[in-house]
Amino acid sequence: MSGANTFGRLFCVTTFGESHGPAIGCVIDGCPPGLAIAPEDFRTDLDRRATGRSRFTSQRREADEIEILSGVYQGRTTGTPIALLIRNTDARSKDYGDIAQSFRPGHADYTYWHKYGIRDPRGGGRSSARETTMRVAAGVIAKRWLAERHGIAVQGWMSGIGPYTPDTVDRAVVEDNPLFWPDAAQLPEIEAYLDGLRKSGDSVGARLSVVADHVPVGLGEPIYGKLDADIAAALMSINAVKSVEIGAGNAVAGLRGSENRDELSHEGFLSNHAGGILGGISSGQQIVAHAAIKPTSSILVPGQSLNSAGEAVEIVTKGRHDPCVGIRAVPIVEAMLALVLIDHVLRHRAQCGDVPAQTPQVPNSPAIPSP
Amino acid sequence: MSGANTFGRLFCVTTFGESHGPAIGCVIDGCPPGLAIAPEDFRTDLDRRATGRSRFTSQRREADEIEILSGVYQGRTTGTPIALLIRNTDARSKDYGDIAQSFRPGHADYTYWHKYGIRDPRGGGRSSARETTMRVAAGVIAKRWLAERHGIAVQGWMSGIGPYTPDTVDRAVVEDNPLFWPDAAQLPEIEAYLDGLRKSGDSVGARLSVVADHVPVGLGEPIYGKLDADIAAALMSINAVKSVEIGAGNAVAGLRGSENRDELSHEGFLSNHAGGILGGISSGQQIVAHAAIKPTSSILVPGQSLNSAGEAVEIVTKGRHDPCVGIRAVPIVEAMLALVLIDHVLRHRAQCGDVPAQTPQVPNSPAIPSP
Amino acid sequence: MSGANTFGRLFCVTTFGESHGPAIGCVIDGCPPGLAIAPEDFRTDLDRRATGRSRFTSQRREADEIEILSGVYQGRTTGTPIALLIRNTDARSKDYGDIAQSFRPGHADYTYWHKYGIRDPRGGGRSSARETTMRVAAGVIAKRWLAERHGIAVQGWMSGIGPYTPDTVDRAVVEDNPLFWPDAAQLPEIEAYLDGLRKSGDSVGARLSVVADHVPVGLGEPIYGKLDADIAAALMSINAVKSVEIGAGNAVAGLRGSENRDELSHEGFLSNHAGGILGGISSGQQIVAHAAIKPTSSILVPGQSLNSAGEAVEIVTKGRHDPCVGIRAVPIVEAMLALVLIDHVLRHRAQCGDVPAQTPQVPNSPAIPSP
Amino acid sequence: MSGANTFGRLFCVTTFGESHGPAIGCVIDGCPPGLAIAPEDFRTDLDRRATGRSRFTSQRREADEIEILSGVYQGRTTGTPIALLIRNTDARSKDYGDIAQSFRPGHADYTYWHKYGIRDPRGGGRSSARETTMRVAAGVIAKRWLAERHGIAVQGWMSGIGPYTPDTVDRAVVEDNPLFWPDAAQLPEIEAYLDGLRKSGDSVGARLSVVADHVPVGLGEPIYGKLDADIAAALMSINAVKSVEIGAGNAVAGLRGSENRDELSHEGFLSNHAGGILGGISSGQQIVAHAAIKPTSSILVPGQSLNSAGEAVEIVTKGRHDPCVGIRAVPIVEAMLALVLIDHVLRHRAQCGDVPAQTPQVPNSPAIPSP
Repeated sequence: MSGANTFGRLFCVTTFGESHGPAIGCVIDGCPPGLAIAPEDFRTDLDRRATGRSRFTSQRREADEIEILSGVYQGRTTGTPIALLIRNTDARSKDYGDIAQSFRPGHADYTYWHKYGIRDPRGGGRSSARETTMRVAAGVIAKRWLAERHGIAVQGWMSGIGPYTPDTVDRAVVEDNPLFWPDAAQLPEIEAYLDGLRKSGDSVGARLSVVADHVPVGLGEPIYGKLDADIAAALMSINAVKSVEIGAGNAVAGLRGSENRDELSHEGFLSNHAGGILGGISSGQQIVAHAAIKPTSSILVPGQSLNSAGEAVEIVTKGRHDPCVGIRAVPIVEAMLALVLIDHVLRHRAQCGDVPAQTPQVPNSPAIPSP
Repeated sequence: MSGANTFGRLFCVTTFGESHGPAIGCVIDGCPPGLAIAPEDFRTDLDRRATGRSRFTSQRREADEIEILSGVYQGRTTGTPIALLIRNTDARSKDYGDIAQSFRPGHADYTYWHKYGIRDPRGGGRSSARETTMRVAAGVIAKRWLAERHGIAVQGWMSGIGPYTPDTVDRAVVEDNPLFWPDAAQLPEIEAYLDGLRKSGDSVGARLSVVADHVPVGLGEPIYGKLDADIAAALMSINAVKSVEIGAGNAVAGLRGSENRDELSHEGFLSNHAGGILGGISSGQQIVAHAAIKPTSSILVPGQSLNSAGEAVEIVTKGRHDPCVGIRAVPIVEAMLALVLIDHVLRHRAQCGDVPAQTPQVPNSPAIPSP
Repeated sequence: MSGANTFGRLFCVTTFGESHGPAIGCVIDGCPPGLAIAPEDFRTDLDRRATGRSRFTSQRREADEIEILSGVYQGRTTGTPIALLIRNTDARSKDYGDIAQSFRPGHADYTYWHKYGIRDPRGGGRSSARETTMRVAAGVIAKRWLAERHGIAVQGWMSGIGPYTPDTVDRAVVEDNPLFWPDAAQLPEIEAYLDGLRKSGDSVGARLSVVADHVPVGLGEPIYGKLDADIAAALMSINAVKSVEIGAGNAVAGLRGSENRDELSHEGFLSNHAGGILGGISSGQQIVAHAAIKPTSSILVPGQSLNSAGEAVEIVTKGRHDPCVGIRAVPIVEAMLALVLIDHVLRHRAQCGDVPAQTPQVPNSPAIPSP
Repeated sequence: MSGANTFGRLFCVTTFGESHGPAIGCVIDGCPPGLAIAPEDFRTDLDRRATGRSRFTSQRREADEIEILSGVYQGRTTGTPIALLIRNTDARSKDYGDIAQSFRPGHADYTYWHKYGIRDPRGGGRSSARETTMRVAAGVIAKRWLAERHGIAVQGWMSGIGPYTPDTVDRAVVEDNPLFWPDAAQLPEIEAYLDGLRKSGDSVGARLSVVADHVPVGLGEPIYGKLDADIAAALMSINAVKSVEIGAGNAVAGLRGSENRDELSHEGFLSNHAGGILGGISSGQQIVAHAAIKPTSSILVPGQSLNSAGEAVEIVTKGRHDPCVGIRAVPIVEAMLALVLIDHVLRHRAQCGDVPAQTPQVPNSPAIPSP
């Protein structure tokens, strides 16, 4: 058994570190050998996730310089564990000092305290979203391997912020705006909305979508190792996520079988309500998943709570925080989907590496918009 | 590592068997010793799940007699593996014969074929929902242990059928109707709707809710072993599930932080948007989860597909089927939640078995309705 | 995590059943698809292990008819779990009735009692060597796959019985005698020795050797997944085994580095003290392992013990038993080595399936006798 | 599943790092909270293992300063992952430069090359015994917890060096000499022997013994999670180990059942051939294990080999090395036994945490010498 801080069965990522401890890091065990990787390769995705990138995210600034401690020789992975380390350089514990004895509503303070009998209150300790930095770092390696060896591409975007949902999904504009929003026309209105939120000291939830293109048919293991079950665990394990949907997701509850089934034809599947997964196994269509993220509870709006002495207190979180933490989660959902996919590529070739290609293969159906 | 057909880390349930093979069964490894269990204890939940219970479910009839092959001595569990077996007695393979060479839209036919290069087409083989019988059986043991040792109670119900959602949730009436519907006033209308569906040869999706009461604070392991991540995997692994929500679920995307956070007081938490889980650890509140289930694709409405020769074919599934498979899933979602909880009780006492009880404990808040 | 009754990480074998319960069985999860397998394929190895085969083994007779419950369709594995079942047909519990309340020296009676607070005393319950029947059955599948797909051959023999060790190892004669002894000239003397033992109501220990030929270079995972570490666990998990050696084994403690190292040449390795494993990874040489098995404690010679009331008692085990249980262990050590090897073939192609073949390859050295 | 670089099911230790890379380290996941631990607590055992301690071990000098990166707050473990880091400060790669293209006999050079298609030749890379530093570090935490919470004490010593075996085992003198030898009278002769070896540029094998006192009855999980199976894997995973024995070990092959069984009495067990383990579960007696370690192949005596171009070469290892690597392994075998024991304490209380104490308990038998 792996511990609770390890993700993956064959491509195993173990993360460690607290928000305001000396460092955070991860160990990636099981990476195939021969992949070129260098510290600068992590830069783009760490920046995409980073705090302090725009006025809509927390102003904490971390250099987030990755050091590769092992597992890479002459620029290539060796098959031995890859350890990555980031020193915490902007850990101002005093920001959080005044709430160290109180339980912030919506945070893990209360539950860590009862579970372990001890908790590191500095910046949320282990429960801080700072841990997701290492998910993103591990995801960089996974995404690169998937792209180089299998042509698989993973992309995420925001598909909901508070009352807003995109009217159109234009994946080409996602990286052009700090909100990873796929509908450029809505940006001015949403930015104004977020500015208002920030001024009011409040926060708001979000919804994210993530897809993988060019995934071959056959990835995923029934029954409890289904591709979608692993995606569900992967996305739900991200801080603040409260919902995971595959393909048409929640909407399937209201659909008829004749509407929902994805018919097969010589031109490809005629729809993709299944999100590219049938019976827990990839169908060759685009993999589609969504996650809903709750608004952060670290807000300036006063709230009721208790302290560790059992007294009623009023909580105001004055530290650096995000009006919409979901914005920073785009590279995280991409990373988690990539980690699931690389794990299943390895699992598939373990069991079925000598299964010959079968016919017929339904062609991909690129014209079908992601639900 | 456990195989893909095993669920749980310490309370490990491995299921086996195909829909129309000689038998289905499971092995439960890691069950605490000393629990009283007998074959007749499985009857109620197997009946709740069974096909053929009402006109709204498939007319396949299985005796579903459980045989306990091991792990129980003089009526009590011994701590060694508990093997349960059910012979398949109503496996009429001919029903499915005419579709053995075609890929049914929305089914795992196509993906199993490509993954393994071989598939058992009889009744869906391993991908059939018949496998869930053993989840329910294992869940009976988990539910009993949770109830006896910790007073934990698990209950599920239908919270959506096609266009219908309950106006009120009255848990007391759930077991009084064949739809597990919590709002008795709506039943006549929904039954008429389902009759219409059945006559039209179509099917419809559903939404299920499941809660656990009296769960102590402290269950769950950050980061990747979060209680909600495990619940997500557990529910998403059920056939046809396309969405999993915890607490307020999808709705959190539209909420403000000041609305969503669950404030603490001497009277208890003031709300339960978190569904009883904070930072992946139970808070002592009611655990609340939901799942959306797609409509079965085994319908009489003709659909396009391909056969294994690559030819376009029209598919009509004439075999026994359910207009709404979600109805039978109530004991399954209960079982999966129970399996997650017993696993986490064992995991918690492994690591934290000597942590003394902490103060303060926020009292439970029984008056808060499940979202 | 897998449970304690599961062996293997990717080729996962879970066994269940008690000596005198209704049945024993196993579930094999992760078997590659497409392998031909039928009930009669288990016959030879089950007979090799069976009790009642000669006057030197217990007279308990089991039909040991294997039923394949799942995972095989039209004679070939499908990639889904293979469940195997054997009904217990000769479970005469009364044989053991008089010792149900006592703790037999050298048995697990005492430890099971304290661990679980309950124990099934019938024939040793779960701790009985009857469990090894299912190891042998799973091993049949593993050996067949290794042979068909990779030309790997596994063979075991007895290399020690009490005071006897073979003067020569002639693998060709091993299957020609009921003792699996590789030196035919010694057989009359050893058989006379065993007859004497049996008459005296005593038992004796044994040593077994097992080799695998034609194992490719590269199997095994450093650091804790070393091929030899897994072999050690596999063999030590067999009932009564108290020692595991790889290659020269214990003797290395007395060797110099210049003696022990296996030099490389164009003709192959010049010796095989390493038993075919370097740094936890197979070298392409013959894999060689040994196990020492203690004499059974179920003997007629009276011994001191306690009963469950804490009273001193004299123990005489009158039931069926073996003067040398090691004899029946030959197919078991073969099975365990095969299970380790198939698991590592799958693990290797998961991580390194796209590593091109490297040069130079040292040729095998078939002339080197197994230590 | 955990990766190959992780040891343990619940107390999970993942190590990383190469001999001459930037650093080595480990992550310990699953440690119970509340244990006091500080960097200086690792000093004693790291020194016991360290190179450069006497003229009998390699002259490589490492400061081996442990940095605690996470999992400890205000001096106590928090239940979150404990990351430990040691920078490599004396990695003189040039020592090994001339052999980077050759395969040293008895080393993992050849097998890593073929498995991964790439290898880090600096100091053996990942296959270096430098990795064992982190086993020792993790073992310090395990030993402390076992001692504080359960009074369990683990001690190792040398029980064989080349032709020497101790005439008596006096555990009190083990820590008083650099050879961890339990028979002080033999030391002058052995030291002279080792001086001779060193001058001749050769090396020699060794045997180690390790015991655990005050282990409660009931630890260990049948069937494949047996305490002795896990000890076997743990010890065999140590670099250069080729044999693992439990209790009387190899000798059981020559014993009769009436000699070998450990009889029970009101005064305790009357012998301990079983090494404190019956049916895979601890009996309450002293746990006893032994390991044989091969002589290092890094010697000055020239040997035949091949290089990566396939040419025959003569190998002489001029770098720093040990005449008897076994000497440094004493804290390593202690660490591995402690890691197995803490893991099983956690596993036991997970499954059997509510089993009441049973009677009778056979008292420990302190007068029985370890075999």
